[in-house]
Amino acid sequence: MRIVVDVMGGDHGCGVVIDGVKLALQAQPKITALYLVGNQSEIEAALTKSGLQDSRLQIVHASEVLTMEDKPAQAVRRKRDASVSRAMDLVKEGKADAVISPGNTGGIMAAAHLKLRTLPGVDRPGIATVIPTAENDFVLLDSGANIDSKPIHLAHYAVMGHVYSREMLGVKSPRVGILSVGSEETKGNELTIEAFKLCKQLNINFIGNVEGYDLFRNRVDVVVCDGFVGNIVLKTMEGMAKGIFGWLKTELNRTWKRKIGGLLAKDGFMVLKRRMDPENSGGAPLLGLNGNVFKAHGSSRAKAITSAVRISTETVQHQINEIITREVADANQRLEAAKLTSQPVAAA
Amino acid sequence: MRIVVDVMGGDHGCGVVIDGVKLALQAQPKITALYLVGNQSEIEAALTKSGLQDSRLQIVHASEVLTMEDKPAQAVRRKRDASVSRAMDLVKEGKADAVISPGNTGGIMAAAHLKLRTLPGVDRPGIATVIPTAENDFVLLDSGANIDSKPIHLAHYAVMGHVYSREMLGVKSPRVGILSVGSEETKGNELTIEAFKLCKQLNINFIGNVEGYDLFRNRVDVVVCDGFVGNIVLKTMEGMAKGIFGWLKTELNRTWKRKIGGLLAKDGFMVLKRRMDPENSGGAPLLGLNGNVFKAHGSSRAKAITSAVRISTETVQHQINEIITREVADANQRLEAAKLTSQPVAAA
Repeated sequence: MRIVVDVMGGDHGCGVVIDGVKLALQAQPKITALYLVGNQSEIEAALTKSGLQDSRLQIVHASEVLTMEDKPAQAVRRKRDASVSRAMDLVKEGKADAVISPGNTGGIMAAAHLKLRTLPGVDRPGIATVIPTAENDFVLLDSGANIDSKPIHLAHYAVMGHVYSREMLGVKSPRVGILSVGSEETKGNELTIEAFKLCKQLNINFIGNVEGYDLFRNRVDVVVCDGFVGNIVLKTMEGMAKGIFGWLKTELNRTWKRKIGGLLAKDGFMVLKRRMDPENSGGAPLLGLNGNVFKAHGSSRAKAITSAVRISTETVQHQINEIITREVADANQRLEAAKLTSQPVAAA
Repeated sequence: MRIVVDVMGGDHGCGVVIDGVKLALQAQPKITALYLVGNQSEIEAALTKSGLQDSRLQIVHASEVLTMEDKPAQAVRRKRDASVSRAMDLVKEGKADAVISPGNTGGIMAAAHLKLRTLPGVDRPGIATVIPTAENDFVLLDSGANIDSKPIHLAHYAVMGHVYSREMLGVKSPRVGILSVGSEETKGNELTIEAFKLCKQLNINFIGNVEGYDLFRNRVDVVVCDGFVGNIVLKTMEGMAKGIFGWLKTELNRTWKRKIGGLLAKDGFMVLKRRMDPENSGGAPLLGLNGNVFKAHGSSRAKAITSAVRISTETVQHQINEIITREVADANQRLEAAKLTSQPVAAA
């Protein structure tokens, strides 16, 4: 297994990423090569600082980096030596099996799309984020890749999320729902109402529309939405979890009685905190690309990078892209048979 | 103060609504008349059961009710004697000052729009929901009235939310943000990017785009979005809060030590639970209508109805609609001066 890590573009600099790589190399003997792409002198300094020496490491110098301010599609074309593009090149050239980047989501998408293109039959990739709840983990996609989606994109997200939940999370027959404003087929906006019609034709366990209430009571395994809605929902959930735990901490520190109670119950709180920590899931796959690409959380600390590397190796092992290609082809056939696509989806 | 309560259409039947009305009448001496609109015999039975007798009560019989399955706009025209429509009639005829309904949001909107029309200069009403956090309460609008919004609608929501936060929640200079996928002006979908340009011209404290992370750390007082996104975010927050508290309860019941800790800290938890309970805010105003209309939570229990009545009386007292009319007129002038509306917004 050969992994590429774009060490630039994260919120906390290259050092934190290298710390995460160090832990990942210790934990994953299956990794045979790990490419660090970015500014060579910065990488070398960070390696020295972290004391990381490993024969599997290779540095690939890239002189530029995409920033959060860059307009992705333009910047990827303009900054030809951007680390994220160089990282994709390694997969494109067959030198590596997966890329992990903590950078600008739009930039990763643009570089991946330009260099790797999509899987046959897939029009737009989507980011799949795994969200833990008390009783199950659900996959939210698209959580931010594709801001202006079409119904067919949502149908493909349904298929890809279904595959990911089944193969990676071990859910036997994942319940797939479209995130909307009511459970009835007629409820929603133009996009979701059209997507509902397509999803009904697919060979998946489509349960119809789901609402925010359904997410946290084990009613759905794959939550399908456009990238604008998904990104807002994802960040709202992360912000709210942090907000509630912070608020609870403040309240439990107000009196001695509560403080003692909080200490006695602490390991109970920690179960939730650990399970809900976005750093644990660490890396979210960009599904639908002709290559394995993972977005690490922008504010990723070392632990998140380590998790992202672990998830990337598992995804490669499970041959997710091969399975997606097969099941998307089947989905496109069904939609064409039902005359629900205005034109055949181009085979790449 | 004369209040109308549509007692039909809630999830728990007419009795629960009547129980809420009973508490409201006890708490609000300012109410001079309270109309109960719905099936007369059901109402009379519920009044007897609850032991409610009050000279301010008047029953207005309506033979039909909008259900959650009805297509709102069609149903409002077809079911001419629907309770929600009869309720609006009382305001239209000048017999009452505000309407509260626990029914189908789409139905309330359709009936209100048909019977009352919008305020001068306002194109589409929006639902404003107040969300409590540790340090501030923010207003989320539109939280579900207007599924396919235009940029001018979002600009009006910004103005109306600003007025509501200032007048009703006492925030001096409310920070108004557009809910989007990044803080930069260029981040968002077509709708939010256009709305951003309009909001910059307004005489409000517009802070630009906000993300889900910002909601729970006292960074924004008015969160503007279209009704599809707002409704999903609202239900996700409600579902998540419930999910986290339920999960925590399960974890704290696993061992004796945690149980004791939980008991000692219980009043700390209760601070959050009480503050975050959607039944406390109870009623969300539909801002922008030529009349005061409040949507009570669909699963409203008695307490939520009582809160909705309280909020409706306060809103009427603060003359929110008069202030909105003035500030929307000013906003429309500014947008026209900046040539940002393709055509003048019609004065009603």
